[in-house]
Order: sequence, then structure tokens, then C-alpha cells
Amino acid sequence: METYKKIIEDIYLELKNVDDIGKVANYIPELGNVNDKNFGIHITTIDKNSFGIGDHEKKFSIQSISKILSLTLAYKLEGEALWDRVDVEPSGNPFNSLQQLESDKGIPRNPFINAGAIVISDILVGHFKNPKEDFLSFCKGISNNPTLNYSEKVAQSEKKTGFRNKALCNFIKSFGNIKNDTEKVLDFYFHMCSLRMSCKDLSEIFLYLADDNFLCQKGKRILTESQAKRINAIMLTCGFYDESGEFAFRVGLPGKSGVGGGIVAIHPDKFCITVWSPKLNVKGNSYKGMLFLEKFTSKTESSIF
Amino acid sequence: METYKKIIEDIYLELKNVDDIGKVANYIPELGNVNDKNFGIHITTIDKNSFGIGDHEKKFSIQSISKILSLTLAYKLEGEALWDRVDVEPSGNPFNSLQQLESDKGIPRNPFINAGAIVISDILVGHFKNPKEDFLSFCKGISNNPTLNYSEKVAQSEKKTGFRNKALCNFIKSFGNIKNDTEKVLDFYFHMCSLRMSCKDLSEIFLYLADDNFLCQKGKRILTESQAKRINAIMLTCGFYDESGEFAFRVGLPGKSGVGGGIVAIHPDKFCITVWSPKLNVKGNSYKGMLFLEKFTSKTESSIF
Amino acid sequence: METYKKIIEDIYLELKNVDDIGKVANYIPELGNVNDKNFGIHITTIDKNSFGIGDHEKKFSIQSISKILSLTLAYKLEGEALWDRVDVEPSGNPFNSLQQLESDKGIPRNPFINAGAIVISDILVGHFKNPKEDFLSFCKGISNNPTLNYSEKVAQSEKKTGFRNKALCNFIKSFGNIKNDTEKVLDFYFHMCSLRMSCKDLSEIFLYLADDNFLCQKGKRILTESQAKRINAIMLTCGFYDESGEFAFRVGLPGKSGVGGGIVAIHPDKFCITVWSPKLNVKGNSYKGMLFLEKFTSKTESSIF
Amino acid sequence: METYKKIIEDIYLELKNVDDIGKVANYIPELGNVNDKNFGIHITTIDKNSFGIGDHEKKFSIQSISKILSLTLAYKLEGEALWDRVDVEPSGNPFNSLQQLESDKGIPRNPFINAGAIVISDILVGHFKNPKEDFLSFCKGISNNPTLNYSEKVAQSEKKTGFRNKALCNFIKSFGNIKNDTEKVLDFYFHMCSLRMSCKDLSEIFLYLADDNFLCQKGKRILTESQAKRINAIMLTCGFYDESGEFAFRVGLPGKSGVGGGIVAIHPDKFCITVWSPKLNVKGNSYKGMLFLEKFTSKTESSIF
Repeated sequence: METYKKIIEDIYLELKNVDDIGKVANYIPELGNVNDKNFGIHITTIDKNSFGIGDHEKKFSIQSISKILSLTLAYKLEGEALWDRVDVEPSGNPFNSLQQLESDKGIPRNPFINAGAIVISDILVGHFKNPKEDFLSFCKGISNNPTLNYSEKVAQSEKKTGFRNKALCNFIKSFGNIKNDTEKVLDFYFHMCSLRMSCKDLSEIFLYLADDNFLCQKGKRILTESQAKRINAIMLTCGFYDESGEFAFRVGLPGKSGVGGGIVAIHPDKFCITVWSPKLNVKGNSYKGMLFLEKFTSKTESSIF
Repeated sequence: METYKKIIEDIYLELKNVDDIGKVANYIPELGNVNDKNFGIHITTIDKNSFGIGDHEKKFSIQSISKILSLTLAYKLEGEALWDRVDVEPSGNPFNSLQQLESDKGIPRNPFINAGAIVISDILVGHFKNPKEDFLSFCKGISNNPTLNYSEKVAQSEKKTGFRNKALCNFIKSFGNIKNDTEKVLDFYFHMCSLRMSCKDLSEIFLYLADDNFLCQKGKRILTESQAKRINAIMLTCGFYDESGEFAFRVGLPGKSGVGGGIVAIHPDKFCITVWSPKLNVKGNSYKGMLFLEKFTSKTESSIF
Repeated sequence: METYKKIIEDIYLELKNVDDIGKVANYIPELGNVNDKNFGIHITTIDKNSFGIGDHEKKFSIQSISKILSLTLAYKLEGEALWDRVDVEPSGNPFNSLQQLESDKGIPRNPFINAGAIVISDILVGHFKNPKEDFLSFCKGISNNPTLNYSEKVAQSEKKTGFRNKALCNFIKSFGNIKNDTEKVLDFYFHMCSLRMSCKDLSEIFLYLADDNFLCQKGKRILTESQAKRINAIMLTCGFYDESGEFAFRVGLPGKSGVGGGIVAIHPDKFCITVWSPKLNVKGNSYKGMLFLEKFTSKTESSIF
Repeated sequence: METYKKIIEDIYLELKNVDDIGKVANYIPELGNVNDKNFGIHITTIDKNSFGIGDHEKKFSIQSISKILSLTLAYKLEGEALWDRVDVEPSGNPFNSLQQLESDKGIPRNPFINAGAIVISDILVGHFKNPKEDFLSFCKGISNNPTLNYSEKVAQSEKKTGFRNKALCNFIKSFGNIKNDTEKVLDFYFHMCSLRMSCKDLSEIFLYLADDNFLCQKGKRILTESQAKRINAIMLTCGFYDESGEFAFRVGLPGKSGVGGGIVAIHPDKFCITVWSPKLNVKGNSYKGMLFLEKFTSKTESSIF
């Protein structure tokens, strides 16, 4: 941990005042209100050591990072049957594209593009009586973190403006791959994306993807070892939309970004690290976050390749 | 090695007589002449131990696996400037698709789809006076293997029928991303793809991607450590066309397939393993090869995730 | 008229018992309940002579044929400014495709594909307090036909199942090209498509596109001469989705089809003819209707080319 | 004719010095050498009266307008069997797009996009021993015009730079819809496009599309009446690439443009009119030519709608 700590501090200082050419996401109006100077990092190793710096304890809208959690719960419930309804291939297209759905007959390319996460939401809405409450309990239980919660403001903000996601959901339903009422599915989806966590929260909650022997608060495994590996694989190939190849190439870790500016990255058997910086590059991923992680894996030689 | 050996033998016997639902590639007529019962495996560890079984010493047409070698040489020559002419993103499309080139203005998505490998060929044709000879020397030098050679028959067979690749090459040239005469570029490309190697040859030649300290016969590094890692990353995200996600998901290693039925897979810091079985699944990857590797990484717990 | 009459009778008899390889539309469940043996033709000349045969006085769901009427009203209200929000180009794609909208940034290719008709619906919803009532009054007024009405059953049936149209409407709204509430717009759209008319009703109501001097019941022009010509031009290039070229080629008249099995065709300065036969070809146009009109224009030499 | 003459003179004077926002085509280098001030119009009626103004007797590169002539000859030779190899639908895409060919399996959307004209060229190359000579004889024979000829300079210029067309030809051959050697097919295609004619030549040679009773110099019909009508229909729906709808909408006549700046338009049973002005709009059609024809059909009320 001492090596990580020193390297993180150095890169943090180096990047803190770097000219950030990214832009804060504003397609969800509420997201535009964040202070774009926020910059935090937190790492947690599988032996539960941890270190953070900067705004690592401030909560922010984790947005698409939550798609790992909903995928985890759906995978746990459905097992491999899950993959009949969503594929595991990189899309080669932006996160909210409708094009491939037309040729793929409503089967989304992977669970991390919006289309895929909406199908996963449909699965959870079909499983639970109170999907929002039950999903939140599941999340809280993983890392024994009672502070997790939705941002009703952000959820409502996206509900009002999320016409592209409404289009996706209805489009998939026209192919029969949404089973529940679209309003319910989208209400769940928008809430799920509005989850608020800090870098610290995130680097703790995703330890189950780094640690083969991870047990949640109740002493139970979250996923089988094979399932955890497979989610890591999907994160590596699909975690950054049409910049997934670039992240694998430059950083070399399974990861997932959100338009709130957060990035989570996993080193299997070692650690989970999270960076937060709200300004996004043109592909919708945190500009400074990617830069930080590239320098970090390079200096620590912790690419999985 | 003993563990690997035992597991390889077991899976080999299990799969040997399995009903292979794949089909031998016949779009290059000469490829259709291979005996579809061939089945071989060879593993070489970074400490140079090795083990093979079945038809592991028979040479076959490695086809697209050669794209790793041409990429390696071009990367060595051009450094990071290479990525101005070819991207590192999964395409989400079949290996010979022209669609994305139109919107991407002639920049191929990655060096492993045909479009990308043709651009790489153009780079090599521009560098060398005798590109075919010089590329072959480079390949022979890596693993000190004097038996490597092109199959003139296969090269000519593809030359006669490779209209899709001619289309790709001219299409890219119309965007200015091919600098040399298209005939020369394609002649190199078709020869490169016609390289013949055995599983043993392949698992030896690609050790430089597994071993950080690999030195070629002349005692020189092939690539920097960072470059080797980056090629592994591209193999993981793009090595199997629009089945790359599936391979990462099921096998969990950087790899590359060829329509000759070969698959090479790398475990960084551990080994390089090659499987050959000519019948291909609908995505153009060896049916039995993928099955073998899935079982192998599962039993040896050697997914990188 | 006597020539037309004789020819219509002959073709009617020839085709009446022809083996109809088409299929009744069933994507709107209520449409599937129609008797697929219905077959009617009606022609009205600009001097108000008319002739009909078969089921020419039975009302049926005119579906997309109604898009001419909504376009007419919107054109009347907006003038040429209308074309800022919808283009006049053939799409080269199926009627309910979302693909081009993505690259065209929410501007539908033409007012006769669903996307375009939904934008037209938005315009009308924005103009009127009671758009459904006002549109119906407009239609009734054209040919002084008090019997026109919506089919609440068909409108509700599509409302329940029209997920593709909901997707289109939300998708366009995500680009800002729908101004009103999507529910209201779709409610209008589904009602508009549910209009019930007979072949006779249709061949009378569309006389304003054939007759330069057409005056509605109140003695007013519906459109300027130039506007009427332009609607005819759009019908010719876009009236049959991705079979528009085929219709121009085989029939040679501006026309418009609906999935209820109706086809309206206009001969400028001469007549309006309507055919109804519910079984559709694979492109979604009446199989027997197209056959009838091909024979009709060929025998009467009334192609506009 | 007197009315036409007066109106043509008026519009000619009105537009002569209008600010032309178009740009001369330069993708074929030789085409860039034309004087962009050229502006000519010529009309010929079916009773052989004719009138021209401006540069109406200067020859220019007719480029894609020649596709009508090659289509005519192929249609004459093949009859309706022709349509098995090329469709009659507007493409909704730019003139040189490869996208739809991939989904349409090598069948071009229509004979007026480059892909379609290349297939037509293949048909002619297959029919004739000396296709270039025989095609030229055919053209000369239609209007008894011995001055018609190819521009070897333009043909060679395109041969050197026409990589997109080479891509198209090879791509179609990969689907089996080119039967002859691609070099021969392209050599014919580039020569065909290099035909030089004046506005006067053009308005005379295409009279066979306006006049049902047109006989060529040898007293023979060029096409049946039905065939001529069908070519007019394809011109109307497909003659201006992805601006075909706009031309039908604004001008209302079957027509065909070329990147040399020429536009031919037909009024069935009345006349053939040709305009030439080299500056093109963004869709590749003569800016001033379209403007002229819009004003002309509007003032003469000669839209076919």
C-alpha cells in the first residue's frame, strides 16, 4: 500500500491543476450543477487496506457505474440464462445508439450500453415487488454501507429529459425483449443511475470483483468466481462505450465509467481503485480520470496485460 | 508444466471426437483442401518448457494470426505514431465489413480487422524495399525458426478471389490512408496471411507477448514492455472480430484467431498456448479451438480476470 | 369514363380470384380481424364522374393513407417553413426505421414514413386545441363527407402495441423535433391512422390533388396549385416506403398505401383511383392493389411518364 | 416554342450573374479545369423545334448523365431480366456509398448510383467485343450525331484517382454481381462517364424518352414505350442521388445530373431540356441548373404533377 500511496499522491499533485479540456455532462440538467474542480481518488486492496486523497469522500452521481451493480444482481438471479437477453460484445457505437438494436432484433450488445442496462432493469423489475428498495438493500448489503441512496432530484431530472432512453426502452419492447411496463422499467433505470456514492464507497463496494474470496456483510458470496471473472471481462471489453479499446490499451484494467465523472477500475486479486473528476472527454468518459489511471498503472506496472 | 500437461491431455481426449458443428473456411478455395479432422495443441511457458499433443507439429495456414506479427513490426518501426492511421477499438462488425470505414473516413477501427491489417501492410510496404522478404526475415528471427514460409498457393488463391479485400484497400485509398500502390499492398497482405506455421511454431514465436524479458535470437527485445502489453490489450478487445467479447468472457485471455482454424492465446508472464482445428463457427473462429481454451482456462484457473 | 369502366371491370374479374400471396397486417391486432377477401376499386374523375366495383363502399382502416391528409393540413398552416422539420427525400429504408434519424439528427426523411408523420402530428397538436376533432372536421369538409370517423378500437389497439412508434416519437423528441408531450402526439397519430373510409370516400377526398381548380364544400381551395403538385411529387418518390421506386416504375402515378390494404393513386388533371385488398406484400403494400394499378395504367396508358 | 423561348431568355438573364454558391467538382482532377462561368440551356421539343442560349453548344463532360445511355442499351439487350441485377429504388444515400451494398448483397439500389452503373457496365462489357466502340456507335446512332466522343484525358484522370469506384466494383464482384474482369469493367465505366456533349447534343439525344414515336436515324425504335416510361420513372425517383426527392419536389420532371454540371430533364410527350453550369451544390448537383429548372417548370407550368 505504501507504494500505491506515494504514486497516487504524486500523480494527484501532478494532475490537480492540469488544464482539463473535458466538459461536464449537461444532458441531464441536474448533473450540470456539480463543481467541476472536484478531484478524488480512493484505492482499497483485497486485504482491506485503503487510501484516499482529494474529494474522495464526497458523494457524487455514479450514473453508469451502477450498471455493474444491477448486472451483478441480475446475474446472481438468472445465471447464464441472462445472456439470452443481452450479449457480451463491444458495440463499436456510442452509449445510447439505437442502430444495432434494429439489426440485432432487440438484443443489446452488452449490459453496459444503455440498451443493455434497460433490459437488465426489466429483469429486476420482473423479479421484485419493490425493485428500487430491493436493489438498494442489495447494494447496501455488499459493503455494509448504510449511507447509499438514490438522488431523487437527479432521477426526476433524467425522467423529464431522458427521451433517448424512453426511445430505447420502447424500441426494445417492440422486439419483445422488455417484459414489464416501460414506465416502471424506466423509473427503476433512472433511479438506479442516480445512486450517489463517494470514491471510497465505490472502491469498497466493488471489492467482490477483485477478491475471489469476498464475502458480503452476511458472510455470503456475491457471485461465483467464474461470474466475477466474466463481469471483469465485460468491463474490459465494454466498460467505456466506444472508448473501451482505448482504456484497455492505455490503462489495461477492467473498468467502468459514468457520466458523473467517476471511473472504477479493478485489478483482479489486488485492488479496486476509483477516480472522480466531472469533466468528460468527447466519448463521455472522465478526462482526468483516464489520465490518472493511465499514469497509475504505468508507474505501478499493474496492467493485467 | 505437469499440471498443464495433464489438463491439456484430458481436454484433448474429451474433445477429439466431439461432434464439431463448425465448417471449414472455403472463401479462399485453397483453404478448403485441408483435412478437417486436424486437431493439435501446443503450450510454451516463459521459462521455455513446452508440451504439445495431436497435430501440433503440422504446419497450416495461420491467416489472420499473422496480423499480430505485422502489427508488431509496424509498431516497432512507427512507435505511437502508428495509431494515427489505425484505431484500437473493437468494431462490433464482421471482419471484412466496409460500413464503419465510411463514417470513420478511412481509419480502420483496429489492426486486426482486415481493413486495419491492410493499412499495416501499406506501412510495411512503404518501409521496405522487399517487404515480403524482410517481413519473413523478421518473423524467422523472433524465434530462430528457419522453417517459416509463405504458401504461394494460398497467396495466389486469395489473390484470385479476394475481391472484398481489394474493395477494402481501394476504399481506404480513396480516403488517403493507403500510400502505396494497391496491387503491391495487397500482394504483401495476401502473402502475409498465407504464412504457414504449426501450433509449436506459433506458441514459440509469440512468447514475446507473454514474457517481459523476451529477447530474440540476436539478443534484442522485440518490443518495449509497454508496447507488448498494448498489443495484448488489443488482442483481448479485438482479436476475434465480433466475437471478441465472447472470447474474453468465456476464455479470459488475449488471443487471436485465423480462418485457417488456429487460435493463439497469451497469458502474460506465464505462457503462450495455440490450438488448431479447422472447422469454424459462424463468426469465423475455430469452433473446437474456442471450446478447448474455455475448458483449459477454467480448469487451470488461468483467466487474466 | 366508359373506357376506364370497361378496363376496371376486366381487371377486377381477372384478379378477383387470383392467388393472393400477400398477408394481412397483424402488428396492430385489430387490423387482423378484417376479411381478407375484400376487394374494391373506385375511380373519380375531375369532372366528378365516378365508378366503383366490388367492396368499394365498405369502410376500412386507411392507416398511412391518412398521412396525406395530415400533411395537407400542416402544409396549409405552415407553408414552406414545414420543410425545416421534415425532408422530402425517399428514405431507402422500411417505414418504421430508426436508423437514419440518428445520422439526420431527428429530421425525418419525408412526411410519409412514420417518423415524418409523427412530426406532422406534433405540428397539428401544437396548432389546435382539439386536434383530433379539428383534423376530423378538416377532412369532412374537403369532400363534404359527414360519415368520416376514427375507429376508436383500432386507435386503442395500436396505442397498446405501438412501441415502435413510441420509440420513434421519443427518439425525435430527444433531438428537439417534437415540441409537445409525446403522449398527446401519439394519441393524435394513432387516431389519425385509424380513420375509416371506403374506396369511394378516398377517391373523392383526394380529388384536390388531381384537380387544379378543386374547391372544397365551402368554395375554398385546399392548397395552392404548387403545393398540390409538391404533395404529388412526394407521393411519387416516397409514398410506398422502400418500394416507392417499384411503384413509380410499374404503375407510374403518385400514390400512397396503407397497411389496411388501401392504395390511392392520382393522375394529375385526370382522376383519383383507389383500390382496397387487405393482403400485403413483404414491403407492406397491398399485393393485389399494386397488381391492379399496374395493369390499369398499362391498359389505359395513364402513367405520367 | 415561342413561350418557352421567352421564358428561357428571361431566366437566363436573371440567373446569369447570380452569386453561385456551388463548387466545381474536383475529385476527378481533370474536371477542375473547366471554366466555372459556363452557363448554357437548350430545349428540343418532340416536333423537333429547338432553342438554345449561352454556352449551349460547348461540349462538356456529361459524367453521370451517360448512365441513362448505358442503361438504355442494357435494357434494350436484356429486357426485364436486367432488374435481377439492379433494383429501381431510391437509395437514400450519397452517389458513391458502399453501405447498402453490404446488406443488399451486391444488388445496387438503382442504375443511377455508381454501383448500379458499374453493374450495367459489366453487362455491356459482357455483350460486346469492343464495348467502348460499340457503345459509342449506339450513342451516335440515336441522334445521328457523329461528333460524340470520349475524353481520353478525363477517362485517364478518373482511372488514376477513382479508388472509390474500384472499391465499389471489387465489392460487388465479391458478391458475384460483376461477371467480367474488374479492370475491363472500370475502363468501360470511366470512358462512358467521360463522354463529351453540349446542351444541344443532350437535348437531342434524349428525345427518345420524351417522344413515344421516336425513331433513331435508322428508322428504328430505341426502346418500347413501356421501357421509355420506366426509365423516366427511375430518373424521377433516383436521378439526383440523395437529392432526388428535392428535384421532384421543386422541378417536377424526370431528370439526371452529372458532376460536370449538366442536368437533363424530360417532359414526357413534350420536350427535353438541358442546362449546364459547372458549380455543384453539396449533394453534387448543379446549383444554377436546379435553380433554372425550378423557375422554368414553375413559369411554364410544366411539372408532370
